[in-house]
Amino acid sequence: MRFSQFPISTTKETPADAEVISHQLMLRAGLIKRIAAGIYTWMPLGLKVVRNVERVVREEMENAGAVELSMPVVQPAELWEESGRWEQYGPELCRLKDRHDRDFCLGPTHEEVITDLAKTEIKSYKRLPLNFFQIQTKFRDEIRPRFGVMRSREFVMKDAYSFHENQDSLEQTYWRMHEAYSTIFDRLGLDYRPVEADTGSIGGSHSHEFHMLADSGEDDIAFSTESDFAANVELAEALLPEQVKTDFEPLECFDTPGAKTIEALEKRYGVPATHSLKTLFVEDAQGELVALVLRGDHQLNEIKAEKIDGLSQPLRMAQETAVKTATGASFGSLGPVNLNARVVVDRAASVLVNFVCGANEDDKHLKNVNWGRDIEHYEVADLRTVVAGDPSPCGAGVLEIKRGIEVGHIFQLGTKYSEAMNATVLDQNGKSVPMTMGCYGIGITRIVAAAIEQNHDANGIIWPAAMAPFSVVLIPLGMEKSETVAAAAQALYADLKAAGINVAMDDRKERPGVKFADCELIGIPLRVTIGERSLNEGVVEVQGRRDSEATNVTIDAAVAYVVDAVS
Amino acid sequence: MRFSQFPISTTKETPADAEVISHQLMLRAGLIKRIAAGIYTWMPLGLKVVRNVERVVREEMENAGAVELSMPVVQPAELWEESGRWEQYGPELCRLKDRHDRDFCLGPTHEEVITDLAKTEIKSYKRLPLNFFQIQTKFRDEIRPRFGVMRSREFVMKDAYSFHENQDSLEQTYWRMHEAYSTIFDRLGLDYRPVEADTGSIGGSHSHEFHMLADSGEDDIAFSTESDFAANVELAEALLPEQVKTDFEPLECFDTPGAKTIEALEKRYGVPATHSLKTLFVEDAQGELVALVLRGDHQLNEIKAEKIDGLSQPLRMAQETAVKTATGASFGSLGPVNLNARVVVDRAASVLVNFVCGANEDDKHLKNVNWGRDIEHYEVADLRTVVAGDPSPCGAGVLEIKRGIEVGHIFQLGTKYSEAMNATVLDQNGKSVPMTMGCYGIGITRIVAAAIEQNHDANGIIWPAAMAPFSVVLIPLGMEKSETVAAAAQALYADLKAAGINVAMDDRKERPGVKFADCELIGIPLRVTIGERSLNEGVVEVQGRRDSEATNVTIDAAVAYVVDAVS
Repeated sequence: MRFSQFPISTTKETPADAEVISHQLMLRAGLIKRIAAGIYTWMPLGLKVVRNVERVVREEMENAGAVELSMPVVQPAELWEESGRWEQYGPELCRLKDRHDRDFCLGPTHEEVITDLAKTEIKSYKRLPLNFFQIQTKFRDEIRPRFGVMRSREFVMKDAYSFHENQDSLEQTYWRMHEAYSTIFDRLGLDYRPVEADTGSIGGSHSHEFHMLADSGEDDIAFSTESDFAANVELAEALLPEQVKTDFEPLECFDTPGAKTIEALEKRYGVPATHSLKTLFVEDAQGELVALVLRGDHQLNEIKAEKIDGLSQPLRMAQETAVKTATGASFGSLGPVNLNARVVVDRAASVLVNFVCGANEDDKHLKNVNWGRDIEHYEVADLRTVVAGDPSPCGAGVLEIKRGIEVGHIFQLGTKYSEAMNATVLDQNGKSVPMTMGCYGIGITRIVAAAIEQNHDANGIIWPAAMAPFSVVLIPLGMEKSETVAAAAQALYADLKAAGINVAMDDRKERPGVKFADCELIGIPLRVTIGERSLNEGVVEVQGRRDSEATNVTIDAAVAYVVDAVS
Repeated sequence: MRFSQFPISTTKETPADAEVISHQLMLRAGLIKRIAAGIYTWMPLGLKVVRNVERVVREEMENAGAVELSMPVVQPAELWEESGRWEQYGPELCRLKDRHDRDFCLGPTHEEVITDLAKTEIKSYKRLPLNFFQIQTKFRDEIRPRFGVMRSREFVMKDAYSFHENQDSLEQTYWRMHEAYSTIFDRLGLDYRPVEADTGSIGGSHSHEFHMLADSGEDDIAFSTESDFAANVELAEALLPEQVKTDFEPLECFDTPGAKTIEALEKRYGVPATHSLKTLFVEDAQGELVALVLRGDHQLNEIKAEKIDGLSQPLRMAQETAVKTATGASFGSLGPVNLNARVVVDRAASVLVNFVCGANEDDKHLKNVNWGRDIEHYEVADLRTVVAGDPSPCGAGVLEIKRGIEVGHIFQLGTKYSEAMNATVLDQNGKSVPMTMGCYGIGITRIVAAAIEQNHDANGIIWPAAMAPFSVVLIPLGMEKSETVAAAAQALYADLKAAGINVAMDDRKERPGVKFADCELIGIPLRVTIGERSLNEGVVEVQGRRDSEATNVTIDAAVAYVVDAVS
């Protein structure tokens, strides 16, 4: 590709409304152009990157036995009514009416369409398993589109849906997809982690999110320093620590006027947060008050709290008046001693000895409190959100926490959709059973932005090789004036093309400084500078995007050098 | 691809609601599946064909210097208000509101988005010409979707838009696109014609439609038997015939009670339709009545009538009461003699001698009427629709008329959009001028259906080589029982794959008859049957989709034979 015939539209100005670096660089490098909030045109340079991602995803999906099809963008409401999601789905589902006033939506996801398809196409277990995928434009009416294509309304997604006779078969495909996703992100050269995710209300035994690590990520991911373990921070298990053997001291009550927080207790009375308890009350749907007890420095994890046995969902934090009625004390003086309520204690809090907690009497605390001796009835559960340095639940290493951008999600759907939509097959015994399903998504366009979050410097984007719009750019200096330069550039360009290299030549009538800056901004992995002076010495200058200096390579060796460098 | 792992979903039943053969065969072969009226899923087999068409289109667009980008499906109303089309476009434009109640539409075409893009990206003539294309899902809310994907609501289109400093530059790109389109349809192996089309209200000096010839086409195309000339029947010029020299006979009036049609005149009074006139009255927007006179056997062409000088648009057929007031006669007895109205005569009618026409008195006609002698004031114009056998307006051969399916359209837009949306550049003189634009569309998914209309037989589809989902299918007979067959089939499959052939193996557990029938229905160009008996003779059976019999080919020569046959 010659840049004289290709629209390179870079700018030095940082767009005011772009909050994250990838959004800024994508606009500055001319990869995308905004049409409306969360709706972008992919410019030629950006589209090349998208196509590179699509190619890798398509190849690996096919390698893993998935078959490509293409479902419509516009979907009839009837199918969504069958699954029940026409009512359930919020305003992110963009609904519309056709000229005959019939209801449709823009597909944010395709479970309904594919389940309806499988229902009519697949009658027997003999046709199973089947895994269909598509790479398609989707629309979700985000309330606050932001970060450019990272959270846009229109985006390109690879979504796959698998159909099975039973759970065993689903598990096989599920792990094959897990492996395919890992291969995809490896091939794209990205720093990612498969992360255990919440299986949510659908159930199913497994769900993994694939996160790319980046400071601008919207999720916190906990990793083991010693193993592959990674989980969303919300979901990572906090282990039961070992108890340090210490003799019980006599229980004491002391006055703590006005000290209503863990911090105040630490500051004024020298009680370390790690040695005090915080007692929170939640109220379940039946109105039952339950005390949740954590170590002073720990945070309640609401997802974990919802999993406590015997509580009616949803839970909410109890009102102070209700708590005062039950305990006799206000917030800030609560504790598990002599409490007329169910007490659930976090694991870390449950191993404390001679600790401090509220006395259930305003402005009073207890010290040298001990489980068993002072509180007879309590349950222990995992209630807190893990923090960096916690032992990893996998048993190896400690947890580290980083921010991640979710770019993939694999999910065991089970029979949620096939039951609702009556998508059954005859099994090996001739019995009609709902098909077991899995679904597997990758955010194609989001990957492009996330890759930039991971790979950039002050001068611009640094594309991983597999994603780069061009592998190498030739920059001839003074091509218009020097026939030597023009001839050498043309020859090298032709030779690299012949060698199958995705090569570009910046033959625009621009100053060398502009070309160098553009080449760095748009993130081409390798550039070859062809100037008269160096040609007279028989060399061209080759510089990798991450290199601080150029390397002189003889003209004869240039093709082989470039081929080697970009492969 | 092994069919055991690929969803082949054929059926013998002809779907009741499919009117045309391509729609029937696409459903029967399992290429598409209907989701709603005019909305289809492309099944894996069908998608392979779509991708093949896309690949050829993409390559030829790039060869012709066009650059690919991707514009959004969902477009903001603001842009359409700028161009004026938000009001003008009818209910085919699918309008919707987002969660914030802002107006959007699903793009049926992208002039507004690309003009807005060019407006902000291109400031100087130095960046021109530029030709952008995309291959994209579009939506048009057809009032009556039909013929499957031929006239669907959601479809895939290649649309391109070029930008120029002036008309000369546009013309260059226009003809380059004309050539690229011809190459595309040639490569796809289709029978097509570039057809001169109406430039309509936008103007511009040229517009061509590309039509594929097929009986189910919705347009009538007139071709020269001797040249490349082709035009939409509505637009083809009817030439002025030479006049046969004959002496004028004396004018006579005769009674024709109840004979109010050309047919009645012919039947009862022996007047050939080719020798009588029909006189029609149109009324222009100012209320002026104009008589349009044609030969009895010819049809008025309304597009041509609208081009008569001096008439205010729109025209409509005059009411009989108005005509009777003006002429004194009812419909069926009208003629141009002694008429107090403007008379415009079609070329073919203007060379008749001693002809018959209505006498402008009910139930009376005139015979031996002659132009000049009996009618002094009249104008001659091209008013009729051409018919088969007319001399071609190109001067060579006569016209033949066939039905065509429009699969491409190239168009000179001029400055319609750039003026409305203020998309200007600085020209060579530093003056701000609106960019001159062209647009170029190809109906990707429609081509798939049209190709089937052209290429099928009683057994199913017959894909042109470049479009076929697989180039060759291997059909091993009794693979489960015969290790010889299994080994030979596996080896041939591997060798063909290694040779770069798009090969499939039908390793499903189905009877040979089912496999043969499916192979013909889905239209694979070549099949290789591998059976134990023929293997014992050292051969396999190779049969082209259009062949009536198979050819025995030795096993050693099979790869070379297939490679040669499908290349």
